[in-house]
Amino acid sequence: MDILITGGAGFLGAKLAQQLLARATLAGRDGKQHAITRITLLDRVAAAGFTDPRIVTLVGDVADAATIDAAMTAQVQSVFHLAAVVSGEAESDFDLGMRINLDATRLLLEAARTRGQCPRVVFTSSVAVFGGTLPAQVLDTTAVTPQGSYGAQKAMCELLITDASRKGFIDGRALRVPTVSVRPGLPNKAASGFASGIIREPLNSITTVCPVAPDTKVWLTSPRTALFNLIHAHEIDGAALGASRALNLPGLATTVGDMVAALARVGGEQTLKHIHWQEDAAISRLVRSWPGDFVTNRADALGFLRDHDFDAVVRAYIEDALGGD
Amino acid sequence: MDILITGGAGFLGAKLAQQLLARATLAGRDGKQHAITRITLLDRVAAAGFTDPRIVTLVGDVADAATIDAAMTAQVQSVFHLAAVVSGEAESDFDLGMRINLDATRLLLEAARTRGQCPRVVFTSSVAVFGGTLPAQVLDTTAVTPQGSYGAQKAMCELLITDASRKGFIDGRALRVPTVSVRPGLPNKAASGFASGIIREPLNSITTVCPVAPDTKVWLTSPRTALFNLIHAHEIDGAALGASRALNLPGLATTVGDMVAALARVGGEQTLKHIHWQEDAAISRLVRSWPGDFVTNRADALGFLRDHDFDAVVRAYIEDALGGD
Repeated sequence: MDILITGGAGFLGAKLAQQLLARATLAGRDGKQHAITRITLLDRVAAAGFTDPRIVTLVGDVADAATIDAAMTAQVQSVFHLAAVVSGEAESDFDLGMRINLDATRLLLEAARTRGQCPRVVFTSSVAVFGGTLPAQVLDTTAVTPQGSYGAQKAMCELLITDASRKGFIDGRALRVPTVSVRPGLPNKAASGFASGIIREPLNSITTVCPVAPDTKVWLTSPRTALFNLIHAHEIDGAALGASRALNLPGLATTVGDMVAALARVGGEQTLKHIHWQEDAAISRLVRSWPGDFVTNRADALGFLRDHDFDAVVRAYIEDALGGD
Repeated sequence: MDILITGGAGFLGAKLAQQLLARATLAGRDGKQHAITRITLLDRVAAAGFTDPRIVTLVGDVADAATIDAAMTAQVQSVFHLAAVVSGEAESDFDLGMRINLDATRLLLEAARTRGQCPRVVFTSSVAVFGGTLPAQVLDTTAVTPQGSYGAQKAMCELLITDASRKGFIDGRALRVPTVSVRPGLPNKAASGFASGIIREPLNSITTVCPVAPDTKVWLTSPRTALFNLIHAHEIDGAALGASRALNLPGLATTVGDMVAALARVGGEQTLKHIHWQEDAAISRLVRSWPGDFVTNRADALGFLRDHDFDAVVRAYIEDALGGD
């Protein structure tokens, strides 16, 4: 069982690789579990910290045809395609967003088609495919209406993945992943970056700016739940997704104000002084265009999980990233 | 006022050019009417039959960057992007469909962005963006669920056009045009080709095969109404379309059986002997995946038109194509 993870040096990619190594098996095309023999981590930089001989790091540009050709060999039976330019950057650098978020996906699907092994492909789409005037709760049947280039690119990839699955080039699953919070590490250029920053930085006694108002609604997933759902998406029968391979993942509906209240409860009132509230119009526009609540009957029936309590999410972050407090 | 029509040698493109020449003016970026000084007809073959000095024919591949570069000059303020590989061909030749239906649109938008004049762009999308399990009537809010590569490619172009409009690269309108019937001329490779063939061929005493059952639902527009709506889409304020530039056009909901009944009424019972009913599984699958009825409140409010009576459509075909009977 040969696995390719694009964005493999990123936070989710590296965590996913660790979990797969620990699992040791994954479902093959026949639906049965097979021993994982190799995990290729493709990214712009080398994934660090791996000593397991099953890990191969591949440094390259995911939108470069030769790189994808080298990564997407005939042995690869599973792909987790996580590489992306984040929302804020895709909006400010249109060409880069099109290249990494759209062209790279197309190259990957085309390579799979050429090889002919019909790999399972798990793709991370986003709630940013929705926007504008939305129902109070987004349903499984709600039309995509992206209000940013990132969301438009993700929505196009969903169409590519569904069509490639129908044609038998791949067996794809495109997951509309809620905003991941709390991400460890450094801030990135995602418009949603604050959703981790306002928890992570105060817990590390670092000052952070919150660019959106406390009443801003957010639809969240913890990293642990996101990882469970990524692997679960790989393991289910692709045909169970139906005609569209795009799926709204379960999440936790909350507000930025309630997130900060959870931080105060779990991390102490003194953490709040590290948050400076200063609205950024561009970020606020994008974030407020995303839906804050969903009814995810389809994903629930397929066994995907959600977080229920943001206090528990903050505690899990402390446990995972800070080694307990 | 400099206009570009891709697919300009095709039936709709050539008819559109004739109507634009007769109109003599079109709305510019300022919303005011400007004299039409040039109409460039880009197609694989030269558009025939034009003597008006305002017509320029350009023979080339719409997916070739140099051709688009030559066609999409800084003077072009209006684009009617009609060039496409039809549904049946996009399904059988995936690469050709991606190239003409997706890549060409992207080239065109990119050229407009480089030139910087923000032209009005009218794009012909299709009801084939819908499919699978649909409500009895498709609404303005119904999610796209293409069941073929043609529909997937059109849906991706809608996303490109909406995003490019939001970014100010173009001022776009993507029209989900119902199946056009009755098209004059020769059969093409569209899965919907029968919708014209079963009327046109019998009226010309030519035998035709109907590849779908009489109870198959279809959502139709006559060529006259389609042309009115193409020009109307150009003339309205793009902002009136709202956040998504894709629009379900009004149509006539009928069945293949009722179309043939209209043929018998208008053309005489003897026409029916020219229709051989022989179901084609691949065509039937695609056509039955398309919706047969819509509620088009948004387009109705914007002043788009529909046909109300298929008998009148057949009579108009006889008038336009056969010069009366």
